[in-house]
Amino acid sequence: MQSLIQNEDTIVALSTPQGVGAIGVIRLSGKEAIAITDSVFHGKSLVDQSSHTIHFGTVRDNDKILDEVLISLFIAPKSFTKENVVEISCHGSNYVIRQIIQLLIRKGARPAKPGEFTKRAFMNGQFDLAQAEAVADLINAASEASHQAALNQMRGGFSNDIKHLRDELVHFASMIELELDFGEEDVEFASRDDLKALIDKLLVAINGLIKSFDLGNVIKNGVPTVIAGKPNAGKSTLLNALLNEEKAIVSEIAGTTRDLIEDEVIIGGVAFRFIDTAGLRETTDVIEAIGVQRTEASMKKASLIIYLFDLSTIDKVEMNKEVNRLENAGIPFLKLGNKLDKATDSQVEELQAQHPDMLFLSAKEPEQVEKLKERVLELVNLDKFKRGDTIVTNIRHYDSLLQTRNALMDVINGIDNQITNDFVAMDIRQSLHYLGEITGEITTDDLLANIFGKFCIGK
Amino acid sequence: MQSLIQNEDTIVALSTPQGVGAIGVIRLSGKEAIAITDSVFHGKSLVDQSSHTIHFGTVRDNDKILDEVLISLFIAPKSFTKENVVEISCHGSNYVIRQIIQLLIRKGARPAKPGEFTKRAFMNGQFDLAQAEAVADLINAASEASHQAALNQMRGGFSNDIKHLRDELVHFASMIELELDFGEEDVEFASRDDLKALIDKLLVAINGLIKSFDLGNVIKNGVPTVIAGKPNAGKSTLLNALLNEEKAIVSEIAGTTRDLIEDEVIIGGVAFRFIDTAGLRETTDVIEAIGVQRTEASMKKASLIIYLFDLSTIDKVEMNKEVNRLENAGIPFLKLGNKLDKATDSQVEELQAQHPDMLFLSAKEPEQVEKLKERVLELVNLDKFKRGDTIVTNIRHYDSLLQTRNALMDVINGIDNQITNDFVAMDIRQSLHYLGEITGEITTDDLLANIFGKFCIGK
Repeated sequence: MQSLIQNEDTIVALSTPQGVGAIGVIRLSGKEAIAITDSVFHGKSLVDQSSHTIHFGTVRDNDKILDEVLISLFIAPKSFTKENVVEISCHGSNYVIRQIIQLLIRKGARPAKPGEFTKRAFMNGQFDLAQAEAVADLINAASEASHQAALNQMRGGFSNDIKHLRDELVHFASMIELELDFGEEDVEFASRDDLKALIDKLLVAINGLIKSFDLGNVIKNGVPTVIAGKPNAGKSTLLNALLNEEKAIVSEIAGTTRDLIEDEVIIGGVAFRFIDTAGLRETTDVIEAIGVQRTEASMKKASLIIYLFDLSTIDKVEMNKEVNRLENAGIPFLKLGNKLDKATDSQVEELQAQHPDMLFLSAKEPEQVEKLKERVLELVNLDKFKRGDTIVTNIRHYDSLLQTRNALMDVINGIDNQITNDFVAMDIRQSLHYLGEITGEITTDDLLANIFGKFCIGK
Repeated sequence: MQSLIQNEDTIVALSTPQGVGAIGVIRLSGKEAIAITDSVFHGKSLVDQSSHTIHFGTVRDNDKILDEVLISLFIAPKSFTKENVVEISCHGSNYVIRQIIQLLIRKGARPAKPGEFTKRAFMNGQFDLAQAEAVADLINAASEASHQAALNQMRGGFSNDIKHLRDELVHFASMIELELDFGEEDVEFASRDDLKALIDKLLVAINGLIKSFDLGNVIKNGVPTVIAGKPNAGKSTLLNALLNEEKAIVSEIAGTTRDLIEDEVIIGGVAFRFIDTAGLRETTDVIEAIGVQRTEASMKKASLIIYLFDLSTIDKVEMNKEVNRLENAGIPFLKLGNKLDKATDSQVEELQAQHPDMLFLSAKEPEQVEKLKERVLELVNLDKFKRGDTIVTNIRHYDSLLQTRNALMDVINGIDNQITNDFVAMDIRQSLHYLGEITGEITTDDLLANIFGKFCIGK
């Protein structure tokens, strides 16, 4: 176990979003957090107070009152960072907040780096690295699915799975290391068959986690979905119909990641990110254009195409060409016959017979659009998520899992090729290293800087 | 005294700014605030806890965990609103915050209207109306001067002045009302000479407050300052030199009131709002253009002109014409000889003799620009503010003071014209009414709706 580190230097930052609001919360953490706050606070003496108590008073720069505030005290180790922590709740004015932070810096605090509070919490064993990363995901979560995945991870679900795998491997590793100590004596504490069986078991679990990343990525970043079709097929009408329900959410999050959100719709708790097909709209070769997109960064590619056919002008020859192109593109797609109100019953029956998976609706009718939502949800396989299985959502974890898998394959190959114990032990250690990287049992300064540097300041 | 009102309906709102941050604070106020929070909180039972304590746990929607939170309890009357208040500090995700607020609403809270927390605090006598308004000003304060003016007002300085004036008048009013009770008996409890002397005293004080509004307005909204002069006089260089020092502040407040801030410079704690003269730059008839501006809304007009002369190309005849036009415009102005590095000593001496108030500098030299800042500060008379006198910053108060003055003049005129006591009493009551409106002793629903409607939600 790590012993608690109460950092000598006390950090300070605004923990609430920038902007004008009723209140802003300034957070300090470190050995001197309470003493520094006390030196600018007029009210009760803060150093004599209990943890988890709140105190009203003024923050003063010499005689000049900067604001009336509420001070919340968290005494080590009963705090987020396990250090002394003070939260100053002041009026939500940028000017007031800046003045108070500058004053606290003059009194001995220093500005916190991005994610530094969370980093200190991690260093003091409040949680492991995967959980710390989940905090950032939780803050950025915009849908129920991403929120639940982040919260599960923050509360340790994923970490427990990894830890369990790692513990089993550690046991074998120590046996093999023991054999090494006996050198030439040719003892075998760890049965090679048992080891191989364990590694097979590990590989199944790790492959499952690796596979879950496709879903995890979708949960975290939204399902990239292209609404395509010929001009006037009703794409805009459909997009508006889909967006309408969640318009409020769109405006609430405006300004954060507007480009992305503008076309995002939450369906059944999952974010669907509709890719603007305005450009594609003009070219008839829609699917080839998407094919080009596929070759671009994997994050940009469509996971799903909703392809609209205008039932009022449908041409079967042309339609078959389009379906062919869709199939060749190799992306899951949904055939949608739009403008149902303008089609005859026999026309629909004939099409349905030819294309049993085709959906028919009028995009102008909200209750019909609900049918589409259900179908879209079915196409994204969320059963695993619903069952509460662990889902990998973080690309760093995904990379570490891939590397763990490679190292485990090396162990298997090594045993099969009867390489010496030294090398088997080394490959196992390598596997342990990559697994440990996920939860932070193995860390480097670069790794930590990389992870926490992506956090916002004040977290 | 008002008795405490513990509202049956409990209100809830996000009190920190919208946006993604480390934490967000959701506030509840009302009789059921603690019970409603307790119904969704898993941790200790909140209803058994002391005021001003903090509790860690999770917020749950049935079995579904929404977030890990810290709950701060404020038990009536020891809270901002003097009702039961709960602050929920959760992760700063828009999604999480929305989920928690929606859950609390389902459990019986209702969304707070803008300023409703502050209105409840006012209704329960936490502070008077002028102080409540100062809270909003404090949140919006962007300079030291506006911050200090708002803070002084919030802490009651202005209210005390008004209350003191009103108390003196109430005494006389009651004497006059008493005379009315005695009807025909022709008694005079209140000496008319004493009353007139008091009203003269009141008028002096009220005139002082009315006059302070010019300064108060400048403190609150910034000094509208035009940098003018012929093309190539160095206006942009000067503006950049002035802006440079505070560029950091500009970027920090970006997105709040960008148009205004972009050209705002804090000098000696006072905001100077530089009016874009780009349009004026092309016309030689700069001052006439400003003259036109003057006729526009008073808020838009320049309080100060910094007029630049290019010393390297200065033409005395032309310069005298420009100075004449400046003087005719009737706006305080500062003559600035720019490009000092390109002028000869004798040229500067001659100009200085002719224009003793002219300032010479090179806008490219930061230390020389400091001289300009000092001079600009002198031109805005801040002595009164520095002395700690009460400054009226609120246009509502300004209007009420003007109406008080009119009513007091009516009292004086009434006495001089020997009108009956009924009418004198009525005019005095009218004066009391307008003074009472400022601090909220006299309120109407419309007035309150108007004031608190301008607050942000969550305040």
